[in-house]
Amino acid sequence: MDVSQRIEKTLESAVSKAGGTSCPPKLAECLKYAVFPGGARVRPRLSLAVAQACGDGTPKLADAAAASIELLHCASLVHDDLPCFDDADVRRGKPSLHKAFGEPLAVLTGDALIVLAFETLGRHAVHAPDRLAPLIGVVSQAVGGPSGICAGQAWECEPSVPLDEYHRAKTGSLFAAATVAGALAAGAEPSGWRRLGECLGEAFQVADDICDHVADPDVLGKPRNQDIANDRPNAVQRLGLEGAGQSLQALLDEAIESIPDCEGAQQLRTVIAIQSKPFMPKGFTRHAA
Amino acid sequence: MDVSQRIEKTLESAVSKAGGTSCPPKLAECLKYAVFPGGARVRPRLSLAVAQACGDGTPKLADAAAASIELLHCASLVHDDLPCFDDADVRRGKPSLHKAFGEPLAVLTGDALIVLAFETLGRHAVHAPDRLAPLIGVVSQAVGGPSGICAGQAWECEPSVPLDEYHRAKTGSLFAAATVAGALAAGAEPSGWRRLGECLGEAFQVADDICDHVADPDVLGKPRNQDIANDRPNAVQRLGLEGAGQSLQALLDEAIESIPDCEGAQQLRTVIAIQSKPFMPKGFTRHAA
Repeated sequence: MDVSQRIEKTLESAVSKAGGTSCPPKLAECLKYAVFPGGARVRPRLSLAVAQACGDGTPKLADAAAASIELLHCASLVHDDLPCFDDADVRRGKPSLHKAFGEPLAVLTGDALIVLAFETLGRHAVHAPDRLAPLIGVVSQAVGGPSGICAGQAWECEPSVPLDEYHRAKTGSLFAAATVAGALAAGAEPSGWRRLGECLGEAFQVADDICDHVADPDVLGKPRNQDIANDRPNAVQRLGLEGAGQSLQALLDEAIESIPDCEGAQQLRTVIAIQSKPFMPKGFTRHAA
Repeated sequence: MDVSQRIEKTLESAVSKAGGTSCPPKLAECLKYAVFPGGARVRPRLSLAVAQACGDGTPKLADAAAASIELLHCASLVHDDLPCFDDADVRRGKPSLHKAFGEPLAVLTGDALIVLAFETLGRHAVHAPDRLAPLIGVVSQAVGGPSGICAGQAWECEPSVPLDEYHRAKTGSLFAAATVAGALAAGAEPSGWRRLGECLGEAFQVADDICDHVADPDVLGKPRNQDIANDRPNAVQRLGLEGAGQSLQALLDEAIESIPDCEGAQQLRTVIAIQSKPFMPKGFTRHAA
């Protein structure tokens, strides 16, 4: 099974369990709507790529870690799109969840997806029970307080925003969790893997900022210039378009260089180079994640 | 340390870690606001009472299980109070979180509390790592889909509501998780403990319905007749006030009878009899949970 199939299969199994027989039908429909069809699945692909580079000794747990990270990403998209945040009409090329199903179901779907992420980790930990607590630690740190996605989003409610902290929490944290969890799930020493995720997360954020300025909204799957409309910090505003492009390239180079010595390091370098192509300013054809 | 101190100390430790140094100050404040001061802490007290009845062999893990259940309860209150659900002005005798801090922080606080519940379990699992996966399973089942709190709330978005399923998911599930998790955390066989939680959860729901009709709003900590205002199913409407009182008594009797044979069974019966007094129709002096 290739990486995409592993990710989709694990997500399908998780979502269909959560939306099972006794589930209110609309909530079950919303859970599917929020997760399928996905974007580029950048984070779970990265997580599995790291697990593979580390030997992929416990593939089911690696699949669960990758899926839990994508479920948390989907939850954050559903809640970010709510009227009290971005009030986005469109997500991944279709109406945002609250536009399609209403605000109550959008709140509940996000909540249920957060729970499902942890449930999925717990369910697959039978393959290596001693790795569950560290995985829970890494994943929860990436999404909760004091410096996960919730914290990143909450900076927008403060009178002044520390830019680096904001981006690190809102985007970088889940990328860092993706690489660390991939290594952990495979039974490797995880500490050396954080920088790779951080660099790619920051690169992804810069690429997103560039996209927000230049890309075709139909390709993007959402309206452009959302950051300016929502008065959010943006790398292009800060560095100019050319400066942002240079920053993006430097981050991708640092990412590649940061990869720890391991069995599959060379292959991982190739995978990252290929997968980051759509990030780059000249080719915004496959950007939505 | 008595049960209340154990609960408050574990909650304080969890909330202060989540709201630590790098946390946006308002989110840190909101996390505290949502959890302290608590209501009667019915669910974590129940969970710890069961752990004690089972010998309380791993008290730190029992504390974590109890705290995780209360954190999830607090998260559900914050999200339930949002304008798209109850639009409640008051909770636990003070302004609801979104009234005090705005809707974006209320959504994020609920999300961060859900994450914190699982993080807390993971952090304390070092005391008995093999119990973490079953604890995650029990707790996530109680709050996510297909039949946890999110599912219970989502029934309100359906054209017709199966009453028993609705109450079981919205209230009963977390009580059942409280008893099962208490047993699990103490290393006891958990299956016999579910009925106790289910009965007490149902009793609590009926008591809440009675309160909603007759109690003084100042004592209640929230406005009365909320169910009627929100067109929600209610035991008093269904059974009349006297019928609801009888149903409550029967559920409490069944709860006491369901307690499995264990070291501390007799003491647990006494604890439950004492703690359920404020549930009863004549004494609504300490009801808010």
